[in-house]
Amino acid sequence: MRRVAIIGCGMTKFGEHWDTGLRDMVVEAGLNAIQDANLPGEKIDAGYIGTMASGSFIGQEHIGALIADYMGLNPIPITRVEGACASGSLALRQGFMAVASGLHDIVVVGGVEKMTDLDGSMVTDVLGGAGDQEWELFLGATFPGIYALMARRHMYEFGTTEEMMASVAVKNHRNGSKNKYAQYQNEITMDTVLKSKAVASPLKVFDCSPVTDGAAALVLAPLELASSFTKKPVEILATAQASDTIALHSRQSLTGIKATTIAAEKAYKMAKVTTKDIDVVEVHDCFTIAEIMAIEDLGFFKKGEGGKASLEGRTAIGAEIAVNTSGGLKACGHPVGATGVKQAVEITWQLRNEAEGRQVKDVEIGMTHNVGGSGATAVVHIFGKGN
Amino acid sequence: MRRVAIIGCGMTKFGEHWDTGLRDMVVEAGLNAIQDANLPGEKIDAGYIGTMASGSFIGQEHIGALIADYMGLNPIPITRVEGACASGSLALRQGFMAVASGLHDIVVVGGVEKMTDLDGSMVTDVLGGAGDQEWELFLGATFPGIYALMARRHMYEFGTTEEMMASVAVKNHRNGSKNKYAQYQNEITMDTVLKSKAVASPLKVFDCSPVTDGAAALVLAPLELASSFTKKPVEILATAQASDTIALHSRQSLTGIKATTIAAEKAYKMAKVTTKDIDVVEVHDCFTIAEIMAIEDLGFFKKGEGGKASLEGRTAIGAEIAVNTSGGLKACGHPVGATGVKQAVEITWQLRNEAEGRQVKDVEIGMTHNVGGSGATAVVHIFGKGN
Repeated sequence: MRRVAIIGCGMTKFGEHWDTGLRDMVVEAGLNAIQDANLPGEKIDAGYIGTMASGSFIGQEHIGALIADYMGLNPIPITRVEGACASGSLALRQGFMAVASGLHDIVVVGGVEKMTDLDGSMVTDVLGGAGDQEWELFLGATFPGIYALMARRHMYEFGTTEEMMASVAVKNHRNGSKNKYAQYQNEITMDTVLKSKAVASPLKVFDCSPVTDGAAALVLAPLELASSFTKKPVEILATAQASDTIALHSRQSLTGIKATTIAAEKAYKMAKVTTKDIDVVEVHDCFTIAEIMAIEDLGFFKKGEGGKASLEGRTAIGAEIAVNTSGGLKACGHPVGATGVKQAVEITWQLRNEAEGRQVKDVEIGMTHNVGGSGATAVVHIFGKGN
Repeated sequence: MRRVAIIGCGMTKFGEHWDTGLRDMVVEAGLNAIQDANLPGEKIDAGYIGTMASGSFIGQEHIGALIADYMGLNPIPITRVEGACASGSLALRQGFMAVASGLHDIVVVGGVEKMTDLDGSMVTDVLGGAGDQEWELFLGATFPGIYALMARRHMYEFGTTEEMMASVAVKNHRNGSKNKYAQYQNEITMDTVLKSKAVASPLKVFDCSPVTDGAAALVLAPLELASSFTKKPVEILATAQASDTIALHSRQSLTGIKATTIAAEKAYKMAKVTTKDIDVVEVHDCFTIAEIMAIEDLGFFKKGEGGKASLEGRTAIGAEIAVNTSGGLKACGHPVGATGVKQAVEITWQLRNEAEGRQVKDVEIGMTHNVGGSGATAVVHIFGKGN
């Protein structure tokens, strides 16, 4: 199996892009990544695109071919992959395999979602398709409600408080304020979060990631060819994916995501590193409680101690482990199919020492953690310097 | 790159399954394939599922995780891939890469679509998402209309007739009548086709593939391990995929699908065979004109001579090249995401000499050809005996 490197990356600003369609966003992010890789277009062999629900959001399936067309990349193959909110990471994982297998050399990986063409209630309905349509959504369980159940149980079992959850939002907005691609570049206070309207108690508006348009892209190459394109290749040291039940009611525990734990174990083993080696991590904070569970499930803190650790500032830049330097899904925004790729873009910038204003010192190893639905899919990637 | 074999296959009957949901059909096809491979479930490492538009058809995305759950395969990773009507073949292609790369050993590949929960006009609308939503569907160009344009041009340039197209339907119904999994197991006459109602002239009801529910599945393994599961492994000799413009109006020609030609060239090269070596082929006959174009684009007949060859019976079982022994999309039915996998199931049966009632003699090499949309994606696989 060949070693695989990221040789370029790019993204659009995340936000509400009323005047920009899905195809425009993909082209912008893709060209940014290709230019970043100093890559002549004709060297590209294949592509993967992660998008969750373009059929429901904009009536367009067959996004792979659409992108090949609009990026001028015909006739190379581009394939769409989907795993709900983890679609972007699954695209990266398939791109990795395409290069690792030797079937392709230069592979472009993208993630995109155009969400704001529908109104809020319709978006909530489409996103419900990431859970169990028959046993959850049909009966009224939308995603804020599902994560609220997890939050309540976490509070009950471990004494996690609304302040602890709010501290995650405050930290991620602080990080996002340094990221020119983030949807929200404003800092917020604990008071703002705690006094915001309830969405599904205990989760309030500022505990939730927003509805967002955006795209992100990476260019992959065999590691041995990477240095001919870039001075700062980033190696993908591990890719791992795991599944759990689609419906929350079938899980053994509501206070963690088992698929995260399993994917993380596989990833640590594949990369031959431990939690302690990770300098910076992008985790899936679709809700603040999700970040607290993630930093526990990934092994950074013991189960039940993630909330306290967040409130104590141990996940800030410069503290024990820098979590969501991009601003996370909370401040950066969450165009679902794009998020996993954006996480890898942020880690690439951190490893290349290019995360202006939010750079973590002496980064050697970074990680991304992307969740589909309420945890039925989890994908973990580990990255290191490629030279 | 490791060599990859099919060690088991299975499917549901294709048809209108009013009482069966998507998850039930996947489980049925998947278990059939796993049993066919004599495989203990715990040996399975990963899975891929092709489905075009489950979000729009049944409100359910995240099909990979859903299947892992309902097949009892948690926590192994299962990933959905989509390329419109070529989704099934793309799932097979990703499964191939997962095994070829060495990342996984035993991989289950499935394809599924549950289409009959919506009424006909809504299905047509959803399928329109396989073309260019903004420039075709929005302006009223549905798929029968798009293929009717291709048919008219083929008739104009090459003298192809409605009788020639009708002969494709008659032959495919004859083959389908021998296939217990086919939606339509009745033979039809030229008269039936020619006197059926116009859908988009010159295409009539019997020139069109139907709306269908169904699932199909394969089990893949490294070739060197295949003999421990089955006496009749089938090797995947080549996988190739190509893209063309998403909208028909941007194409250089309307009388062929360029992506098919390019994918076929790549596949022949990878498998080190030529058109003459192919004994049996499943082609993408979403409309009768599509089969005529396919047998030309794949090199079996010269451009413009496919219609005449069909009318002369040169594509029947026992003639020059056996085309669509399963009954094709026309008679077997076309649950879009399942079709590409079903094609590979049929070729596997042909190579194992198990296609009862429709077996081609002395099959050594088989091929599948699966198209997304009006030709923006084409996927070609070539198969041979694995021992």
